[in-house]
Amino acid sequence: MPLWNSRFRKPLADSALRFTSSLDFDRVLFHVDIDGSKAHVRMLRKQKIISAADERKIIRGLEHIRKEITNGKLKLDWRNEDIHTAIEERLVKKIGETGRKLHTARSRNDQIALDERLYLREEIAGLIKLIRHCQSVFLSQAEKHRSTIVPGYTHLQRAQPILFAHHLLAYVEMFDRDAERFQDCVGRANRSPLGAAALAGTSLPIDRHHVARQLKMDGVVENSIDAVSDRDVLIECVSACALTMMHVSRFAEEMVLWNSHEFSFARIDDSFATGSSLMPQKKNPDIAELLRGKVGRVYGDLIALLTIMKGLPLAYNRDLQENKEPLFDAVRTTRYSLAIAAELLNHTRFDATRFETELEGDLTLATDLVDYLVAKGISFRRAHSVVGKIVQECLRQSKSLNQLSLSVYKRFSSKFGADVFGLFTPRKSVHAKVSVGGTSGKEVERQLHRWRARMKNVL
Amino acid sequence: MPLWNSRFRKPLADSALRFTSSLDFDRVLFHVDIDGSKAHVRMLRKQKIISAADERKIIRGLEHIRKEITNGKLKLDWRNEDIHTAIEERLVKKIGETGRKLHTARSRNDQIALDERLYLREEIAGLIKLIRHCQSVFLSQAEKHRSTIVPGYTHLQRAQPILFAHHLLAYVEMFDRDAERFQDCVGRANRSPLGAAALAGTSLPIDRHHVARQLKMDGVVENSIDAVSDRDVLIECVSACALTMMHVSRFAEEMVLWNSHEFSFARIDDSFATGSSLMPQKKNPDIAELLRGKVGRVYGDLIALLTIMKGLPLAYNRDLQENKEPLFDAVRTTRYSLAIAAELLNHTRFDATRFETELEGDLTLATDLVDYLVAKGISFRRAHSVVGKIVQECLRQSKSLNQLSLSVYKRFSSKFGADVFGLFTPRKSVHAKVSVGGTSGKEVERQLHRWRARMKNVL
Amino acid sequence: MPLWNSRFRKPLADSALRFTSSLDFDRVLFHVDIDGSKAHVRMLRKQKIISAADERKIIRGLEHIRKEITNGKLKLDWRNEDIHTAIEERLVKKIGETGRKLHTARSRNDQIALDERLYLREEIAGLIKLIRHCQSVFLSQAEKHRSTIVPGYTHLQRAQPILFAHHLLAYVEMFDRDAERFQDCVGRANRSPLGAAALAGTSLPIDRHHVARQLKMDGVVENSIDAVSDRDVLIECVSACALTMMHVSRFAEEMVLWNSHEFSFARIDDSFATGSSLMPQKKNPDIAELLRGKVGRVYGDLIALLTIMKGLPLAYNRDLQENKEPLFDAVRTTRYSLAIAAELLNHTRFDATRFETELEGDLTLATDLVDYLVAKGISFRRAHSVVGKIVQECLRQSKSLNQLSLSVYKRFSSKFGADVFGLFTPRKSVHAKVSVGGTSGKEVERQLHRWRARMKNVL
Amino acid sequence: MPLWNSRFRKPLADSALRFTSSLDFDRVLFHVDIDGSKAHVRMLRKQKIISAADERKIIRGLEHIRKEITNGKLKLDWRNEDIHTAIEERLVKKIGETGRKLHTARSRNDQIALDERLYLREEIAGLIKLIRHCQSVFLSQAEKHRSTIVPGYTHLQRAQPILFAHHLLAYVEMFDRDAERFQDCVGRANRSPLGAAALAGTSLPIDRHHVARQLKMDGVVENSIDAVSDRDVLIECVSACALTMMHVSRFAEEMVLWNSHEFSFARIDDSFATGSSLMPQKKNPDIAELLRGKVGRVYGDLIALLTIMKGLPLAYNRDLQENKEPLFDAVRTTRYSLAIAAELLNHTRFDATRFETELEGDLTLATDLVDYLVAKGISFRRAHSVVGKIVQECLRQSKSLNQLSLSVYKRFSSKFGADVFGLFTPRKSVHAKVSVGGTSGKEVERQLHRWRARMKNVL
Repeated sequence: MPLWNSRFRKPLADSALRFTSSLDFDRVLFHVDIDGSKAHVRMLRKQKIISAADERKIIRGLEHIRKEITNGKLKLDWRNEDIHTAIEERLVKKIGETGRKLHTARSRNDQIALDERLYLREEIAGLIKLIRHCQSVFLSQAEKHRSTIVPGYTHLQRAQPILFAHHLLAYVEMFDRDAERFQDCVGRANRSPLGAAALAGTSLPIDRHHVARQLKMDGVVENSIDAVSDRDVLIECVSACALTMMHVSRFAEEMVLWNSHEFSFARIDDSFATGSSLMPQKKNPDIAELLRGKVGRVYGDLIALLTIMKGLPLAYNRDLQENKEPLFDAVRTTRYSLAIAAELLNHTRFDATRFETELEGDLTLATDLVDYLVAKGISFRRAHSVVGKIVQECLRQSKSLNQLSLSVYKRFSSKFGADVFGLFTPRKSVHAKVSVGGTSGKEVERQLHRWRARMKNVL
Repeated sequence: MPLWNSRFRKPLADSALRFTSSLDFDRVLFHVDIDGSKAHVRMLRKQKIISAADERKIIRGLEHIRKEITNGKLKLDWRNEDIHTAIEERLVKKIGETGRKLHTARSRNDQIALDERLYLREEIAGLIKLIRHCQSVFLSQAEKHRSTIVPGYTHLQRAQPILFAHHLLAYVEMFDRDAERFQDCVGRANRSPLGAAALAGTSLPIDRHHVARQLKMDGVVENSIDAVSDRDVLIECVSACALTMMHVSRFAEEMVLWNSHEFSFARIDDSFATGSSLMPQKKNPDIAELLRGKVGRVYGDLIALLTIMKGLPLAYNRDLQENKEPLFDAVRTTRYSLAIAAELLNHTRFDATRFETELEGDLTLATDLVDYLVAKGISFRRAHSVVGKIVQECLRQSKSLNQLSLSVYKRFSSKFGADVFGLFTPRKSVHAKVSVGGTSGKEVERQLHRWRARMKNVL
Repeated sequence: MPLWNSRFRKPLADSALRFTSSLDFDRVLFHVDIDGSKAHVRMLRKQKIISAADERKIIRGLEHIRKEITNGKLKLDWRNEDIHTAIEERLVKKIGETGRKLHTARSRNDQIALDERLYLREEIAGLIKLIRHCQSVFLSQAEKHRSTIVPGYTHLQRAQPILFAHHLLAYVEMFDRDAERFQDCVGRANRSPLGAAALAGTSLPIDRHHVARQLKMDGVVENSIDAVSDRDVLIECVSACALTMMHVSRFAEEMVLWNSHEFSFARIDDSFATGSSLMPQKKNPDIAELLRGKVGRVYGDLIALLTIMKGLPLAYNRDLQENKEPLFDAVRTTRYSLAIAAELLNHTRFDATRFETELEGDLTLATDLVDYLVAKGISFRRAHSVVGKIVQECLRQSKSLNQLSLSVYKRFSSKFGADVFGLFTPRKSVHAKVSVGGTSGKEVERQLHRWRARMKNVL
Repeated sequence: MPLWNSRFRKPLADSALRFTSSLDFDRVLFHVDIDGSKAHVRMLRKQKIISAADERKIIRGLEHIRKEITNGKLKLDWRNEDIHTAIEERLVKKIGETGRKLHTARSRNDQIALDERLYLREEIAGLIKLIRHCQSVFLSQAEKHRSTIVPGYTHLQRAQPILFAHHLLAYVEMFDRDAERFQDCVGRANRSPLGAAALAGTSLPIDRHHVARQLKMDGVVENSIDAVSDRDVLIECVSACALTMMHVSRFAEEMVLWNSHEFSFARIDDSFATGSSLMPQKKNPDIAELLRGKVGRVYGDLIALLTIMKGLPLAYNRDLQENKEPLFDAVRTTRYSLAIAAELLNHTRFDATRFETELEGDLTLATDLVDYLVAKGISFRRAHSVVGKIVQECLRQSKSLNQLSLSVYKRFSSKFGADVFGLFTPRKSVHAKVSVGGTSGKEVERQLHRWRARMKNVL
């Protein structure tokens, strides 16, 4: 039975109740709902709005209900409208009249807002932990490949040789920004809206800050109207999920590429790949593909939230209930995807010898030729043009850079000397990139150490 | 156990299986999967690829499984990977070796594509039926208000008096386009991809058209590569859902407005409204608000699908599995929302006398003054300007149009005569709008009859 | 000066005018706006609402303005508010008082709705033409590669050998559905909303059907309220653009892959590729990458339109103006992308000999082994399992299928005979796929002919 | 002429150049591009990679080009490919060979990334300033209405009386979070990617930190691969724009409601409202409607960016160019909308006396009755139920709360005394809501002072 029906002459129609009930999905809030109610009740007693005896009774009742739900003894039925009603009704059933005092100086409007913020705080903590775990898995793989040379790509064309560790560390950076964003979001989320009541505050002598302190929140959401109508932090969190999943999708795409016959660089363990119901030879990177696809649902969740909030007048509107499912879905999908992405990388072997020989004298070393000429005093743009013509010559003759003779080089520029042939190993090229954050062994080692130290602090 | 694992040295890791399994959501396809398998098996027998005895055995087995699932006796476990595997494995368990022939000349790639199309065909039929039902509810409400006068709004400003029936019929038109779009979509969906196999077709002597005919489909999807990699119809369907829900959201917004104290035009039955946990006087149009909010998730579903498909190389990729949940969600949300929107309108009473008196001599009749002057030979734009000044005069004096004297009118234009005072009833204004599709009683009656006749045909 | 300001005591503030003015983007509607006005004026004369002399004068004036705008003589200034106002004001300036009759029995509400529909009709015709052009370019390329053998991919893993023509024809199919969708949309767009006036129709004796006939439209949008508040066809059109661009993005992705060093299958002409400002050797498939990226803006346009329409009460609201830019952008982007995609394919050479030798005895022929066993009476699933183990053996020994001896084959199944070695050429495998729409030469030729014939009809 | 074409045998086709050229929109980056180039050149000299004379020459040349572009003397032609090329080519033309040294140790990949970050830093500073301006306009309006009583709404139903100042302050809170988010974003944006070169770093002895310091950036983006492939900050910024515009859309919706005949609460100045081309009496809140609509394009821009980034392999891909237009559009739209929203509010008068009398004894005071009973020791839920029945009685008798007699009250609960009639003025109800952040005069004054003080600091 709804909490509000004394004013109505008829009960809510079944179909209407079914349509409005949120219990099927908001049950995940039961823990935080009880936490919030406990803090509320303690404050009511401190403020002498209820007695110490009532407080004890209610809190004991709530903890009992927490256990009942946890161990599945309390059947939560959609007919209870929402988790807040379900718990209050159960409380009244258990402890009688005293239970009817729980909702004093509170509305579901501020109660829901509180629950969502407590939920976010908890989930984001979990997400950040998973991001740290991901970083550490990428870092470990990078440490294994601190001297593996691969072609770096731009436009999916081979650009310059790089260390594979360097490539993997790029993801560690991305994940770091993801964690920062979640941190920013939780900073704004962790404030208590409780005490805003329906929208105007209350005439009862409550202490909002006391509730916040008990819940370890950083103060209250000041304006009571804003407190019940704002859902910014939900959207922020799903935005952060969308960016995280975008990063995951980029990694997933690379896994698909690296596992292709054409790239032949990565080999997923049999326990993390799947086959075909028709073609017996197939070994497919399904996990990576699903990770790539899952970014779609999180983008969709973000659009759902943004659409719902568009053009809503203040303060609370029931549309806000529709925010919950996309939020829960985005958080769950991101959590799950991060965990699996880490596991997938852990179950993948990369062929450290795949590319190095192939890159001897390769055209990807052309930039080194340019730098050579620049060091000899030729302007950059002219050097670029000279080397471009050498590349054309290589293509014409189907030769690699180390297959042209010195006299040919001299035809393009008199600055070339025999030392030019020292440039043509990819390892040399890599280690020459000594600029800060560049791909040289020295810089990559520095980055590896920095991250390893950092991981120690955050994990 | 997966269908494909003989090539692998290790079983799929539990976490990987959990991540890739789709059985939690694709179980809704079990009916169509069995339908498709039956058609396939009949064709295999007709083509002498399997024997008549095998056909009988398999079909009996499949029908048995259908019953088991329907009555909940067969527990579908996510470990079965997907509904297709679950059914095939169950079949082998039931009928032994013969069951292993079911998948002959078939891949899950074409099987899934078929199942999705059969699902779409069925769901769209249901959606169209619901749209027709909605139209008929709107039409009935319109018939009740065939002479109720309300202000028509543009920019939420009162513009001109109209019949409320006319306003409601605008929604009947919208829904009609929605139904058309679903019809267009099913026209493209209702073709069989079966026989495309993995992507290349098969060397076994199958008859694709026979399968299509059995399933009452309009031919086959020709190109086998396209057949397994295309998901256009899913996106089309969700696009059509998005437009439908957009229409629903507009109606929901109007319901919220009409039920406000300020508009005081609509009164939702107590059985279709909800109250407040804190404020005892509240009666809220929650159903309308939720309907308005639900458009968000369908937009989100659409973006999910579009994102997933972006930039996928041919042919099948596992990302496509991620299409299912948004599709199912969009269809279910739209279906549910249409049903509830109709019920909500059925449970709403509109106050037929709310506006008419208020509109006597109202400024919303200004356009009638313009038409009056145009009929007397003044150019439209000049007439508009003359009446604009009269409006300004009314505002200055806080008078309505019928409170100015004839001499005042004559001050603005000599063309005004005493007959001008005949213009100032909203009913007269309404009935003057005789243009085709206009708000005059005659036109609205014509529309009501047209739709009533149409409804008889389509329902 | 606005058309409506006689009622106001102050002119619109400059910043407000700047914010509301749409002339910077709606000027593209000038042709259709003039077409619509001409049809309107002709009808007004036919209905004796204006004189034949007025009609002539106005039409001559309008045609003059069309020329002035076309040759740039008439400066369209954003201060004119919108293209409709700009033209009407210019007309009054040119032909005097008569010009003030143009807007008789018309509102900008129905005028804009008409213009958008005429614009859509024209643009969609152009889009369909471009789609046909694209199909014909893909078809030509397919005809060049009617016997080129390539690996077909699923999950970006080599699956089975196919003809490259077959692969290209999959795109011809996709484009065909795209054209169909645009056709469906134009079917709903091509109706005249003119005569709906502001929202209620008009009391002047207009003939809406006459206007529609003159503009070669299929009747009128019946309900006048719906006529001015509906923007479904815009969204439908942008949805169709989104699907088309999604197809383009898939092709673009494949072009990027095929042009990679690893795939080495396609070679874009130097005139359609770009280089690097730093790395002289680079030749990048930028055109393909931009095509892939452009899908993003069209998805964005779609979300913009859907968001704008969410929850708007009837009838016209100024929010609708915001629909124009995303619509124009989506149409322009799609048009441009289709044209460039066709050009890109035309400027690409595919290496017909790249894959065939490599596929001799390749594991991608494993399905042929399964079919072989099925033909010998082994159940499909068992045959799949047997071949899976053979594949495992090949992987263990690093051998291809044709490098195992017959005795090894017999170890896996006694059904194997010497004839099994006849299976191991990819060409044989391809031609065996004789099912309808399969990759066999015969089926692909049939498809090529069908499309070539079809192209003759539609181009 | 492109910077990279020496390797190519043919120039880029015209249509390809047109398609790839970004000069039409990236010209807005010219200032930051020159700033970045100057910092780069200074570092090159400091590191002795170029001479002091070259440095002077290049910097003088760049400043000259800045002036040429600013005053329109340098025609930027799309044939120049992009703003970076246009400037470099112009430089070479002006200062000859020395100009060819500008691009030493730099790629467009890191150059573009730098430009975008400098652009963001500048634009975000502007956005924050505008947000502060908006807050201050809302605050001023709130100060004018510190004692205006209006009904607070939930579900668009009158809920409880509140101060209008309190309502307006809710927006001040929202805008504050918006500013915070932009601040967070700029914190991550303000790092220099320059020196990442194409993706691997460079072998030339550059000093990345020196460049960063000159540009007043907080350090460098460490990993060179990440530096050129990351676009997170763009998406963050557009996310923050989307949330800001969502808030604007809520305000716009309320303005539309408040200006309706039914609400009759707000009156927009004639200089900020528009009329109708057909209906002379209309005065429409077009500005508010357009503000509401503009949220659509920003949501669209966000989806565009997210879609573009989905699944891109590392490092730079040309798709990234497509990020620019949505970014610029979102920033411009948000900037413009904030400015206009403030102006609109400044041009609106609210009727301070509209509601107070109407709320005497109104049902919106029902919660005060509940609090009354709670204070007398009745449990909250029971009190709620009692008052619900009183409300039902009022509705039955069509009476307000102050029209029932004491004996009637006593019928519902013996706790009622004559003092109950002291509750029935809305002002009393408002001032009773003394909880922190509640609507009582005292709390609202506290909030007004807090914000006024805060505004002094931030403006």
